[in-house]
This record gives sequence, C-alpha cells and structure tokens, in this order.
Amino acid sequence: MPDPRFYRREGPRTLADLAAMTGTRPAPGADAGLLISDIGQIETAGAGEIVYVTGKDFVPAWRDSKCGACITTEALAKDAPNGSAVLIAADPRAAFASVASAFYPTVELAAASAPIAPDATIGKNVRLAPGAVVGAKASIGENASIGANSVIGPGVVIGADTFVGANVTVFYALVGAKVILHPGVRIGQDGFGFVPTPKGLKKVPQLGRVIIHDDVEIGANTAVDRGAVGDTVIGAGTKIDNLVQIGHNVVIGRNCIIVAHVGISGSCTIGDGVVLGGQVGMADHIKVGDGAQVGAQSGLIRDVGRGEVVLGSPARPIRQFWREITALSRLTKRNKGP
Amino acid sequence: MPDPRFYRREGPRTLADLAAMTGTRPAPGADAGLLISDIGQIETAGAGEIVYVTGKDFVPAWRDSKCGACITTEALAKDAPNGSAVLIAADPRAAFASVASAFYPTVELAAASAPIAPDATIGKNVRLAPGAVVGAKASIGENASIGANSVIGPGVVIGADTFVGANVTVFYALVGAKVILHPGVRIGQDGFGFVPTPKGLKKVPQLGRVIIHDDVEIGANTAVDRGAVGDTVIGAGTKIDNLVQIGHNVVIGRNCIIVAHVGISGSCTIGDGVVLGGQVGMADHIKVGDGAQVGAQSGLIRDVGRGEVVLGSPARPIRQFWREITALSRLTKRNKGP
Amino acid sequence: MPDPRFYRREGPRTLADLAAMTGTRPAPGADAGLLISDIGQIETAGAGEIVYVTGKDFVPAWRDSKCGACITTEALAKDAPNGSAVLIAADPRAAFASVASAFYPTVELAAASAPIAPDATIGKNVRLAPGAVVGAKASIGENASIGANSVIGPGVVIGADTFVGANVTVFYALVGAKVILHPGVRIGQDGFGFVPTPKGLKKVPQLGRVIIHDDVEIGANTAVDRGAVGDTVIGAGTKIDNLVQIGHNVVIGRNCIIVAHVGISGSCTIGDGVVLGGQVGMADHIKVGDGAQVGAQSGLIRDVGRGEVVLGSPARPIRQFWREITALSRLTKRNKGP
Repeated sequence: MPDPRFYRREGPRTLADLAAMTGTRPAPGADAGLLISDIGQIETAGAGEIVYVTGKDFVPAWRDSKCGACITTEALAKDAPNGSAVLIAADPRAAFASVASAFYPTVELAAASAPIAPDATIGKNVRLAPGAVVGAKASIGENASIGANSVIGPGVVIGADTFVGANVTVFYALVGAKVILHPGVRIGQDGFGFVPTPKGLKKVPQLGRVIIHDDVEIGANTAVDRGAVGDTVIGAGTKIDNLVQIGHNVVIGRNCIIVAHVGISGSCTIGDGVVLGGQVGMADHIKVGDGAQVGAQSGLIRDVGRGEVVLGSPARPIRQFWREITALSRLTKRNKGP
Repeated sequence: MPDPRFYRREGPRTLADLAAMTGTRPAPGADAGLLISDIGQIETAGAGEIVYVTGKDFVPAWRDSKCGACITTEALAKDAPNGSAVLIAADPRAAFASVASAFYPTVELAAASAPIAPDATIGKNVRLAPGAVVGAKASIGENASIGANSVIGPGVVIGADTFVGANVTVFYALVGAKVILHPGVRIGQDGFGFVPTPKGLKKVPQLGRVIIHDDVEIGANTAVDRGAVGDTVIGAGTKIDNLVQIGHNVVIGRNCIIVAHVGISGSCTIGDGVVLGGQVGMADHIKVGDGAQVGAQSGLIRDVGRGEVVLGSPARPIRQFWREITALSRLTKRNKGP
Repeated sequence: MPDPRFYRREGPRTLADLAAMTGTRPAPGADAGLLISDIGQIETAGAGEIVYVTGKDFVPAWRDSKCGACITTEALAKDAPNGSAVLIAADPRAAFASVASAFYPTVELAAASAPIAPDATIGKNVRLAPGAVVGAKASIGENASIGANSVIGPGVVIGADTFVGANVTVFYALVGAKVILHPGVRIGQDGFGFVPTPKGLKKVPQLGRVIIHDDVEIGANTAVDRGAVGDTVIGAGTKIDNLVQIGHNVVIGRNCIIVAHVGISGSCTIGDGVVLGGQVGMADHIKVGDGAQVGAQSGLIRDVGRGEVVLGSPARPIRQFWREITALSRLTKRNKGP
C-alpha cells in the first residue's frame, strides 16, 4: 500500500469496474461486486488489495498471500488460492499499471509554492542554506544541514545530524540519521518501468518510497529511484560512491561498498558487507549474498553466493576469469605457428 | 544555419576575409569577393553558406549540396561541384571551427538577471516551483511544471503538460508535450568537440540545438548535448534511464528504451524501437537499425542492422558471443591436461 | 598540511595524546612529549607533522621524509629514519584517520546564510545569475560568469573569464582562468575513503583540495572529488566530457581528452596528452604515461607506458587485444567440427 504521506488514493472500486477499465476478464466464480481499495505487493497485500502474477515463480508466494484479488494470465488462473478473486489479462503487468493509475490518478509532482513550507517541521539547530526548498509536511531532524539550492520534497523525512549537500533533490523518501548525501544526489524519482503496448511504451506508475538507513553515505550525482510498489532500501552504514545508479525496489544490506558508476537494475537484492567494484552492472532481480565481492566492470546476470568473489562480463569465479585470460593469451601465441 | 532564437550571427564576410582569418587558400577560380553569410551543414546549406568536407565519404553529398563554399583538403578540392567555391586547408575541421567562431563570436552563456524573464511566455496553469529560473523569450506550455531550482535557458520552448523535475537545466532546446525530465537532467550544453592544434586543443563552437519530441522521458542526471551544427534529436515516446550520456548530433528514433549509464558518442543514428541495455557504449557515427537490441555492457564499433541482437565488447551477434564464452571456458578445462 | 582557507585546525597535541586517542603504541625511544601540530603527506611533511606508512613500497619515501612522526605497523617500525618518532598500529590508515579527525574535528559543510557572502570578492564584470550562491571569502575573477542556482563554496577561487554553468557546485577548490564547467558539475566533495573496523566502515577525513588549471573544460554532471590529504589536480588545457568520475588525489596532466563515463580511482597519475576513451575504468594508484591512448571500455589494472595504446578489460596492447578477438572467433568455428 503506497504511503499516504506521499500518494493520494482514490476509490474503492468494484472488481467489475477494474475489469472494465483494464480490459481484463473476471475468472469464473469471481465476485463482480467485490470492493478493492488499493494496490498491493503479493507478500504483504491484505483482503482489500489487488496484486498481479506474471509467471510460475510467483505462484508459491501467491498461495501464501492474503490479497483480495489478483491479475494474472489465463494459464496461471487455475493456481489461484482460495480467497483471491482473479482477473485474466493478456499482459498482467500492463493491466496492473492501469489499475495503479486508477487508484492514484494524480501523482503530485511539483514542490510547494513557498521555499520552506509553513507546515514543514524543522528541528533544532537545522541549517538551511540559501535557496534550499522544503516541501509540505516534510520533517528535518535536529542538527541536520540542507545545502544551498537543494530540494526536499513534500512528506520527506530527514533524520538528525544528516548532511544534505548542495543541489541535492530528495523526494518520496525517509532518510535516517547521520546520513551524508553529496552534491547532486537524486533520491526518489520515478523508476524506469514501462510496458510495451500497441500505442507505444506505457508508463507504470511508481508508487513506492526510498528508505535510507543511518550512517549511509551517497556520492555526488548518484541516483536512487523509488520503488514501483514497495520500497528501495539502503542498509545502515553502506557507502556509495559518485554517479551510481540504483533502480527501483533494489534492497541493499549494511556496510556495503559500492564504487563509482555501478548500475543496479530493478529489484536486485544485495546482502551485508558486499563490495561492488567500479562500473559493475547488474541485470534485474539478481541476488548477491553477504560478503560477496564483485570485481570492477563485471556484469552480473546470475545470483552470486555468500562470500563469492567474481569478475568478468558475464561474471564468473575470479580464478576461472584469470585462467581464461591466460588461455586466450596463450592461444594467440600458439596461433602464430612455428 | 544556427537557430537565431539561440545564436546571434555577425557578418557577412567575403571568401577572401574567411581565407585570411583561417589561414586557408582559395582554390583556383574561387571568387575572392563572394559573400558568405553563415555556416551550414552539407545536406541543407544554401548559396550563402559555407560547409566543410574532410574525406571521400562526403563527396557524394557535396555534389548534391547547394552550399556556396566549402573548406576541404588539397586532395579533395578537385571533387568540388560547380558552384561551390573552395578554400583549401591542412585541417578543414579546425578551419571550419575558426569560421564558425567568426560568424558567432559571442555565444551568450549566462542566464537572465531576473528569475523569470519579463519577456518569457508562461502558459495557463503552469507551475513554477521556488527557485525556478526562466530565460529571455523562453516559452512554457500550458499545464507544464518547472521544478524547484531548475533553469530554463533563453529561447527554450517547453511543450504543454511537460514535467520538468527539480534542479534540471535546459538550454538551446525545443522540448515537446507530455515530456518528463527527471531531477538533474542536463539538456543542451556544449558537445565535446575539439581539434588538436600546435597550441593545444581548440574548441569547436557548438551552434546547434536539442529537439525532444512528445512523450519522451529522461532519467535523473542524464545529459543530452546540443548539436555542433544541426540538432541532437530524441524521437517521440523514447524512454531514457538515469545517468545516460547522449553526444552532439545524435539522432534517436521513436519508442526506444535506453537503460542507465549508456554512452552514445557524437553523430550516432538510432532507429525506432531500439533497446540499448545498461552501460552500452557506442563509438561515433554508428548507425543502429529499427528494432535492434544491444545487450548490456556491449561496445558498438560498427553499425547494427535492423532487428539484429548483439552483445559483447566489441559487440557481435548474440549467439556468436555465447559460443565464444563457452569455447573459452572449455579451453581452460582442456588446458588443465589429463 | 590542509589549506587554512578551507579547514580549521586544532592542536597541537603530544605524541602521547595521539597514541592514547588512536590506540597506538609509541615505539621504543619515541619522545612521548613531542609536539605534533598537523597531519602531512610523506613527501612534503615537516618536523611538526605526522604521516603514515602502510607497506614496504613507501619506505624509501619515508627515509627521505622530514616528518616528525609516523604511524606504521610493527613490522615496518624498524625501517624508521632518524628523526621520525613512530606510533605502532594494527591498521595505520585507520589510526591516521583518527588523528586527522582530532586535528580537524569540524569540517564546515554548510554554505553561508546570505546568497552572496559579504566578504566574498567579486571581480569586475562578473555575471551572477539568479539563485547563484557564493560563500564566505570566496573570490570570483574578472569577467567570470556564475550560472543560475550554482553554488561556490567558502574560500573557493574562480579565475578570470571562467564560465560556471547552471546548477554547478564547487567546494574546496582553486579554479584557473578560462575554465568551463558545464551544468551539474560537482567539484570538491569528499573522496570515497573508508577503513573497515569492527564497528563498520570508518570515514577517512578528506582534507585536501581540487586544483583546476587554465583552459580546462569539464562536462555536465562530471564529479571531481577533492584530495584526502593533498590535492586532486587537473592540468591546463585538459578536456573532460560528461558524467566522468575523478577520485581523490588523482593528478591529470595537460591537454588530455577524457571521454564520457570514464571512472578514475583515487591517486591515479595521468601524463600530458593522454586520451581515455568512453567508459574506461582505472583501478587506484595507476600511472599512465604521456601520450598514451586507452580504448573505450578498457579496464586499467597496471600502469600504461608513455605513448602506449591499450584496449580491453583488463587492458592489453591493442594489437594483442585484436589478435585475441580473432583467435576466439576462430576457435568457435573450429569447435563446430567437421
């Protein structure tokens, strides 16, 4: 359920309404009058919430889910648990995007009209540099510092002793204590989510947040997108270098080191104490175990286990990578012939 | 011809003047008193405009060109079409840079002195957040939103319903309707153009624009440089992720998906419906056909055909890439011996 | 010695005090009452300054050093030159970080309270665009231009005829004449320096500067971190593209070309006239000789000699790279069998 501090919900709507507006079809036995009040995530959804399921991998979670309704494909409809009404769609993700837009039609994008909103909460000893903008109902903790020409969006929470550099933007986020955000950091903008349709690429509403725990440091011009549904999370003590990209719904553990120009695609999960070298790229939904180390410029297309050390594009165990480099070098010598 | 909304031209000048100031030599038969009034591009130049030609590849276009004059090398001078006066240069690009500086000596770089220029056009229901700056003669369309501390340069056009996030800068650009520019986007700064000279690297004046069509979305901290002469263009419905670099004179088609950290060098041409994975790099002047897909971290040094799927650095057909990865892995096993 | 324009020192402190606060142990013969007044770098430190040595590679410089004291390991303590008192630490870098924090306990991070500090020096014909912020005791040279919503930190020096674009931030830096900083450039934020401790990652105080020489151009959203101790330096006439990362204590020569998305790790040294292609990555402490050329997407893990041309990840001589690409391609053909 999107955070009401950031998103204004409309509704509820009946299952029949949702079917009509999304061009989906209620499965046999679905109660057309069922009231749905919100979108949800499969793991946490309640009885009034609707979710979506696109593949077999999600069926076990669906069976454990308390969701009231679910959009899925014809093929998967038979796997619906008791208690989950089903809408059948050719493209469940596109249909869910339409439902999300129906419940949240007006994402408020603009900041307030006064530089410091009168209903913002500014703690003791907060330093607001010239040009700083603080949105409606935002809260800035004690001793925090907001740099010149930085923008703190409506509803955002900044913890005590946190330093926000100059020209930073923070939207849809809860930021902990003793966090450092260097100049040009971008927190909480829309994730990169689109579904192809015959009319072009349809935007998937981005209705989540960014959660940044205590003692995190984020480098200059790094971007952290907010979750689509649910949150993007950065664990306590993690240090992120400049110009890093962190996609929507990424969850990063504690005390990680993430070097410059790393790109982490949506929904990746990274454990504690992980090191990602410079310019590493990760495909979406990849999991990296605690204490793993990924060498610079590696490309991750599969999960990396706890404590593993990998290198290369695509990434492989580091010894194997160096063995291959050696073999390739030898090959050219052999090819030169006698 | 540079857009007079953005650039103030001086001149005209005679061919003899231009030769003197650039250290070039009129070819036999060139009319020393010929009046040249502007620089141009070979495809679109008119009789009063001067262009340059550096290699044989451009000779066919030169023959079709209506340009009044052209700077080229001794070797290529004989290929001049009738009607094009020729200036001979050791380095035509450097000489052209000097000519461009002569016609456009004062590129106005600073913004206006009032935050919202009195002669800017602000449409109905436009939201200007605190700290927004709008330059002279800029135009903001109906229902558009300009985020806090963003800067819209002189002469820029922003279309209706377009959302410009916080801390965005837009210069020398025409932006369509329903466009989304996320925080920290940089549009329209100088492209990266220099010619080596004995005194160091000489800057090539950047006198073009950025054209962004409707329904484009551009991610946080992405940079789109303006054209050197002519425009950088992003087609309707194309979606660009965070921290992408788009060089001068790049032309991108419609409904493309360009993932984070992609770097596109100058003068590349990308078709419709193309997908570029994260961290892809492209050398300059590369062409990518409609519907092509380029895997993450690939490096393009040759053109990619319509519908092709490539991967690797340098990029090759995706099957070939995976065959090579497998062969390399086997090789190390074989090398281990019996 | 950190620049007093940017950093306020406390102290001096006795060797015994420093030992107590860092949990280090004075080596036999060290004068417990020795007064230490500052941190220093091994090459330039004077009698009142303390440095650190972590490995054998630094012993020759240590022997030439005039430092008054040094933190090092048990194993290296015997190599101390006469005149350098020794503190023995399990982790000399972590202990040095604590000492640095003791001498510089309050790094002033916030900008001044008025947009243009009354004690800043503004030269003739300087253009300050709307929303520009200039900190205490900063100095802006004649004919310089500071873009809209840009922030010049306390004590910063900007040279004559320098152009600072919109939404730029410059801290702890001395910037030369005729420099161009494009929109969103970040100069002078903390470098990425942490030491692992049982309680998590401990921040190493960043107490250096950024020195940018004349005629440098830096592209949109590029980040240049300041030195940890000592300076990050960019030589005259060097041109840097968009979205580049330059780590702390990097030293770049004159007339280099550094293309977009390059990442240069801390303490790298780059000669004159070097070309780094797009998306090149460099490990820390790498040296690149004058006139070397590094192909796009290369990864440097070893030094590159004067005039060398390298390519690949890891980088190798360019001919060797192409030979390997050819061999690998052949291998797959051979593997297909008869």
